[in-house]
Parts: sequence; C-alpha cells; structure tokens
Amino acid sequence: MPKDVITQRSVDYNQWYLDIVREADLAEVAEVVRGCIVVKAHGWAIWELMQRALDDRIKATGHSNVQFPLLIPKSFIMKEAEHVEGFAPEVAEVTRAGGEELAEPYIIRPTSETIIGYFYSKWIRSYRDLPLLYNQWANVMRWEMRTRPFLRTAEFWWQEGHTAHATEAEAEEETLRILHEVYADFVEREMAVPVIRGLKTEKEKFPGALRSYCIEAMMQDGRALQAGTSHNLGQNFARAFDITFTDQNNTIQYAWTTSWGVSTRLIGALIMTHSDDEGLVLPPRLAPIQVVVVPIYKNDEERSAVMAAVARMTAPWKGRLRFKVDDRDNYSPGYKFNEWELKGVPVRIEVGPKDVAKETVALARRDIPGKAGKSFVPQAGLTERIEALLEEMQTGLFQRALAFREAHTADVTTYDELKEQVERGFARAFWAGDTADEKRIQEETRATIRCIPLEQPGTVGRCIYTGRETDRQVIFARAY
Amino acid sequence: MPKDVITQRSVDYNQWYLDIVREADLAEVAEVVRGCIVVKAHGWAIWELMQRALDDRIKATGHSNVQFPLLIPKSFIMKEAEHVEGFAPEVAEVTRAGGEELAEPYIIRPTSETIIGYFYSKWIRSYRDLPLLYNQWANVMRWEMRTRPFLRTAEFWWQEGHTAHATEAEAEEETLRILHEVYADFVEREMAVPVIRGLKTEKEKFPGALRSYCIEAMMQDGRALQAGTSHNLGQNFARAFDITFTDQNNTIQYAWTTSWGVSTRLIGALIMTHSDDEGLVLPPRLAPIQVVVVPIYKNDEERSAVMAAVARMTAPWKGRLRFKVDDRDNYSPGYKFNEWELKGVPVRIEVGPKDVAKETVALARRDIPGKAGKSFVPQAGLTERIEALLEEMQTGLFQRALAFREAHTADVTTYDELKEQVERGFARAFWAGDTADEKRIQEETRATIRCIPLEQPGTVGRCIYTGRETDRQVIFARAY
Repeated sequence: MPKDVITQRSVDYNQWYLDIVREADLAEVAEVVRGCIVVKAHGWAIWELMQRALDDRIKATGHSNVQFPLLIPKSFIMKEAEHVEGFAPEVAEVTRAGGEELAEPYIIRPTSETIIGYFYSKWIRSYRDLPLLYNQWANVMRWEMRTRPFLRTAEFWWQEGHTAHATEAEAEEETLRILHEVYADFVEREMAVPVIRGLKTEKEKFPGALRSYCIEAMMQDGRALQAGTSHNLGQNFARAFDITFTDQNNTIQYAWTTSWGVSTRLIGALIMTHSDDEGLVLPPRLAPIQVVVVPIYKNDEERSAVMAAVARMTAPWKGRLRFKVDDRDNYSPGYKFNEWELKGVPVRIEVGPKDVAKETVALARRDIPGKAGKSFVPQAGLTERIEALLEEMQTGLFQRALAFREAHTADVTTYDELKEQVERGFARAFWAGDTADEKRIQEETRATIRCIPLEQPGTVGRCIYTGRETDRQVIFARAY
Repeated sequence: MPKDVITQRSVDYNQWYLDIVREADLAEVAEVVRGCIVVKAHGWAIWELMQRALDDRIKATGHSNVQFPLLIPKSFIMKEAEHVEGFAPEVAEVTRAGGEELAEPYIIRPTSETIIGYFYSKWIRSYRDLPLLYNQWANVMRWEMRTRPFLRTAEFWWQEGHTAHATEAEAEEETLRILHEVYADFVEREMAVPVIRGLKTEKEKFPGALRSYCIEAMMQDGRALQAGTSHNLGQNFARAFDITFTDQNNTIQYAWTTSWGVSTRLIGALIMTHSDDEGLVLPPRLAPIQVVVVPIYKNDEERSAVMAAVARMTAPWKGRLRFKVDDRDNYSPGYKFNEWELKGVPVRIEVGPKDVAKETVALARRDIPGKAGKSFVPQAGLTERIEALLEEMQTGLFQRALAFREAHTADVTTYDELKEQVERGFARAFWAGDTADEKRIQEETRATIRCIPLEQPGTVGRCIYTGRETDRQVIFARAY
C-alpha cells in the first residue's frame, strides 16, 4: 500500500477527500443505488461513537427517543407552504407495494416534521401534555443531484429532534439549548472542531421555520460546513397540522414547535478538519481504536518475548483505552504502520526485542507525522502517559483547527475585499441587505451568508453591499 | 386511569396484548401509513436496552457494524430463485424520485442478502479476505396483509448479520455460534424468555437458505413465537451474486454465506411472556426504569422531610440502578402507582412521613401484584436489597416462563392427540413426513412445525402422521 494512494491536499483537495474516505475504509459509493453509499466498518464505528456522545447529551437535556414511520403520505408534505417548496422536488416516492398500485403514494421521509406533526396533533390536548420532547435516530432520503460521501448523499443517517411547547419563549429556549448544550458542546469537545454559532438569514433558513440557528465550521480549504441546525418552527407546522392545546385559561392555542438535527455529514466535517496527506486523523474521543500495538519480531523466540511484554503492557488498558494488538502474521510492520496511519489511530506503540530488553517502547503520535512525532518511552507508567497524550492531542487538534480558522477569517469592508477573502476563508462583514442582494452575491462570488453570529461586535458599520449603516455582522463563505 | 383499561387475558388474549401496548405507552398504530407503527418513548427505551445487550454480544463474537443502502435495485431480488418467491410479493417499490420516473424501480429492503451479496462479490478476491463478519442495525419493510404492533408490521427494526466464509464448515459454525452465543444467550439471560433451539424444516426455512436455525419461545396462550433465526445460506447467494474467491490452491471457489436477524418483534415476545392483567411486566435487565420512588405527603412540611429522605436514599443509586423519583405534584400517589404498574417498573418504593420517622419504606415488587408483593423494609441496606431483588426477579421470571412452557408441552403419539395439544401449547412428536404432509397438517390444525430441536431424545418412534419409524422429534404449535 504505497503512500501515494492519497492525493496531496495542495494538488486536489476534493480528490484528497475521496482518497481518505476510500483508504481509511470509511465508505464506498453504492453506484447501483443512485447517490447512496455503503458506510463501512471504520466509518460506522466512528458514527457509533458520535451517536453515543450525542445521545447522552440529548437525554441529559430531558429528551426521549422514539421512532416514527419511514414513509409519509405524499399529501402531508403539501400542507406547509415553504416546506413543500423546499422538499417536494427531491423526494423518493413509493407508488407500488405488495404488488399493487397505491391510491396515494408515500414519500420516504426527507425529514419528519409533517408525520410527527400529524401525531402531535393527536397526542396534545391540554397544556399539561406539554412540552413534548422527542428525538429519533433515523435514515432519511433526499434525491440530491450532486453527491459526495458523507457530505451530501441521497440516503443519510441522522438524529432529528421534534418538540412542542406552550409558548414562543419556551420553544426559543429549547432551540438555543440544543444549539449550545447539545450541538456546539458535542462538536467542539468530542469532534475537536471549533464552530461559530449563529442565526441563518431568511434565504438560508429551513423551509417552514420561523428562525434557524446553526453551527458553522471551517474546513482546511477555507470553505464552511454547516455542522448542525436547530429550528424554531414557530406555529407554522402547528397550523398546518392542527397541533392545538387548551391553555390554563381554557383557550385553544396553537403549539410552538422546534426541530433540530445533525447527520453523518459530521463525519465529512471530521475528516476535512483534522486529516492530513498521510490519511485520516481522528480526535481520540471519537477514535474506535485509540492505541494500536504493533509487535515486531523475526523468529518464534523473539515473538514469545515480545508478545509476553505486550500482554503485560496492555493488561491495565482494558476498560480504560480502546486498543488493538495487531498480531497478524501475514503483514509486515511497515504495512501495518501505514494502515493504521491511514485509518487515523491516534497512538501507535511498537514493541521489538530491543524494547523488551530495555523496557521501553516506541510511541508514535498521529497528529505529528513522521520522526517528529515518534519517541522512545519507558514501559513503566505507559498507561498514564498514553492517557495524558490522548487528552493533549484532543485539545491540540481543537486548538490547531481554531488557529487555522482565525488565520483564515478576516473582516472585510468592501465588496472587492469580500470577493478576495472568500477564496481563502471566512469574510466577516457588516450586512443590511435583503434576500435578493444575497442571491446576487452568491451568483457573483459563490459565497453565501453562513450565519449571523450570535456574538456580535456591538459596534456599527456600513453594509458591504448596500452601504447602509447597521450593527449586524455576518459571515460570508463558500460552503459544502 | 381505571384498572379496567386492560382487558383480562382470560377474556380476550389478543385484546389484552393491544391494551398493554397502548397503556404501557409502547407503540401506536400509524393508521395513515399502512401496517406501520410509531414506537413510543417507553417502547423505544426497551428496544435500546435490547440493542445494547445484543450489540455487545455481536461485537464480542468478532463482528463489526456497517450500513448498506435502504434501497435495492428491483432486479437484485430476482436473482435468487427461492428468494424472489419469498419476498417479491411483499415489497414496497420506489418508482419515482426527484420528480422523475425511474428507469428501474428500487425496492425498500425487506432484508439485505441481495444488496450485500453484490458488494461482497466486489470486496472478496482471495481467501485472505475471508471471513467477512458484518452486521447492520436497520429498518426493513415487508408489505404484510395482517399486522399487529411489534409482532408483524410493514416497517420493522432489526439487526441483520451477513457473513462470508471459505468453507461450509466455517459457515455452519458461524450460524450456530450466533444461535447459541448471541441469540439464545440474549433472549434467555436478558429477556428471561426460555427458548427451544432448533432447525427449521424445508417448508419453514428462509427463502434461499440451505438451513435455517431458530429459537422458539412459548407465549402465555400456548402459541409459539419465533424469536430469532440464523441461516446457513450455503453457496446459493454466492452463485446468484458471483461471490467468489481464489483459495490457497489458486482455484476459484464460491464463498459460503450466512445471515441472521432478530427484530422489534422481540418486544412482542417480551410482553406476551411476562405481562399480566395489571399491565406490562419487565425483566429488570431490560427495564428502562428499574425502580420508581413515589414520595407521599400532604403538606409542605411533610414534603421537605420526605424529599430529604428520598434524596439521601437514592444518592448511592446513581450509576448502579436505573431509577426515577416521581415527584409530579399534579398526580395522586394512586395514579402514579397505577401508571408505573402499567409500564412494568420492577420495583416501587413508597416513602411517606411515617416511613421517614420509622426509617423504613414500602417496597412493592411488580412480579407479585397486590398486597402479596408489598412489604415494609428498613432504609438501611436498601440499595443492596433492591439489587438482590432485581436479580431474584430476573431469575424468577425466567423460571416461571420455563415452568409454564413445560406445563404446556406434551409428547403426542397420535394425530388426534396432536390436534388437541396444539390448542394448549407445544406438541412434541416423532416426524418423518414431507412438506406436503406439513401443509395438510397446517390446514387441518393451524399448527406448523416450529422446529426440529437440536436436543433430540436419541430414541426411535413412529411418525405421528405417516407412521414411519424415525429418530427425529419435532415441535408442533400454532405460531405468531
């Protein structure tokens, strides 16, 4: 497996991404099912760790998991005007089942606001039934034109939270709680990906939402990736699906609903934030294998000495570290080093006969490739050393990504500066334009407003496009 | 919530089942999506515990999780002759997507042997690539005519394992390992449901399999429920999908494949094995809430004394027990007792002012309803007492179900005896008939051969139907 299986980022960033997905055994394009992928073992193992960490946060904030049907009567998506426009063009339709044509087709859920809205209208009667705080882990399908593994696929896997509340204030509180306590916290702490928290403009918001909040991350090519969204749906879906309740004054009111989701797209974000020209780089908390041990020997005698040392060394790791001893006999150590490097294992331990004699091991850290990241360390205290190193790497990856984003973010005050800056990264600009202005800028620069950051400077400036005075700053960027 | 919301089993077992599903908040029929259900919070929480325990076993036996596409090109299911016959009549078809008619329809997977076979044929080249040991957790769809929550629904949720091996012996070993170490072990230890391990007859085997193994459980009405199946697919799918490899002698061979699955149907088995006329009964290992604490007070003063005692008492439970303190102010203790009884919480602790004074609590165990299961116990040592009780209940439920099955199983030596016995439970009989005989018996008695148990008496007898001498015993029963 030669190193040049991975295209260098500087040569072709897009091809580099596809090479990593393939060589790290993350996914494969399912060319017989248009726009779909097979998520392979290493990719799914990462997703399972992500699910676990997200699910813990979702439950800790008071939500329960449920499961709604995959299929939705086609008429349902027609009930909310913006929602139809957003999703109708890209649905897959089931028109025949059990050998017969269906009177009304079903669509495969592109998202579940409509079918869940239908049930919420049955379940909610009184203010005592509120709030409803549900989430589901599910596959969804959107018939996308251009697809790329994880980043945009017809079928993808996600969680979608759907809640109903008695007041607008409670719905807004929920929407922001998810943004901060679940999504931003997960993406920054577990994925080691720094994000900007913000509000979407009218043009970019979810079809049917009152307000969409998002977290935006910067990839290594300076482009933005929307890592999660949390929507205050207002009373739009409540009106469309008649979700009403009797309040404390015995008046019938429409409920206020929210929805929020993150998907397997986050795996794409993970790859494009940390990985390098040698392969995948994983933050330790999301590494299915955190430490790989490669024993090195030439004969049976060496083998038993080395394997005995390895067994001794790894005994205390059970339950503390996710590790693997790569004792395959039909592969060379060099082959193994390369394979685990491609797959992003954070720490590699090499143990040969000399290490046994000297009571040392060679330790290679994935975040610093090559000789610079390799050292010889004593076997004594190895467990604690590795644990500390994993912590250090987790923090280090976050800091590196944050420094990269800061180095590739600039305040721009003219439209020309903006055009130039979006070639390199994020452009922060004062903004007082409308949707039509945004569309023109997108046509001219391929950049969109990623968000109106929740943290604002509190100063006033001139809109980059209209020249009007405003206190609102936005982030422009090209996006995945 | 009056008690009579649950129909008694003796009156209408089928209605009793539906009442439990509804009143324990497990699922709801999604009447707008034919044959589908919404799995509600309590039902999904049980499924998550089942998934966790199964997934641990699947991984411990060397398998990795992956994810294949939901959609399968329609032509794929036509490739294996028996498989077409088994599944073609009940598939749901996607014929339109992204606003256009598709040249070839896709089906929503009813099971994934075909799409996985396609990929295995790409991935497997040499004996070095074998075995492939993969599993996926997924939703599948079969357009069933008569549906019942969990037991038979159009969409259901399951895991499906798919492996490929170099030899028949290895495939057989895998098939049986799953049957014993994963399925039977899980169902008996975690679900507390005793099972008979056996082989399916030709008539009952999976469409396309060489041999299907199963575990069969007995419900409280004496009917059988197939709780899991593990199939040795021989080389049938390998031939259909050209899954070949070069062996050590450089000869091209077809691989031997297996598949195996258990589904949300197991929730139906769980309900129908343990529950009673008061509601759901859950084995402690699969109870989302193992202990509920109901504080009882009449005024603020009593409330603070009681809640302080509850806080003290439950402090050591964190991380040891799954528990809930039901401190809702708008419901009476009686309402709460009833609700948690319906939901099958194994242990209820009641704490009132007198208990605080006497340093006791009232403890009610769900497996013994009413006064007989209630006792007053000291607060000292409560944690250990509850832990021991949960263990006792787990074992007790298994023993009770086993005793029930034994009491409702009989050896039969004449066809008349068989007809009579299948009204009450399992009929064990010598069998030397063929598929045509089995079909006639099914028409006449509505009973089928559930399995040829792996444990055989080792004696010889006369076939109940043909009168031929044989050493093979089978289990006849009516089945879900």
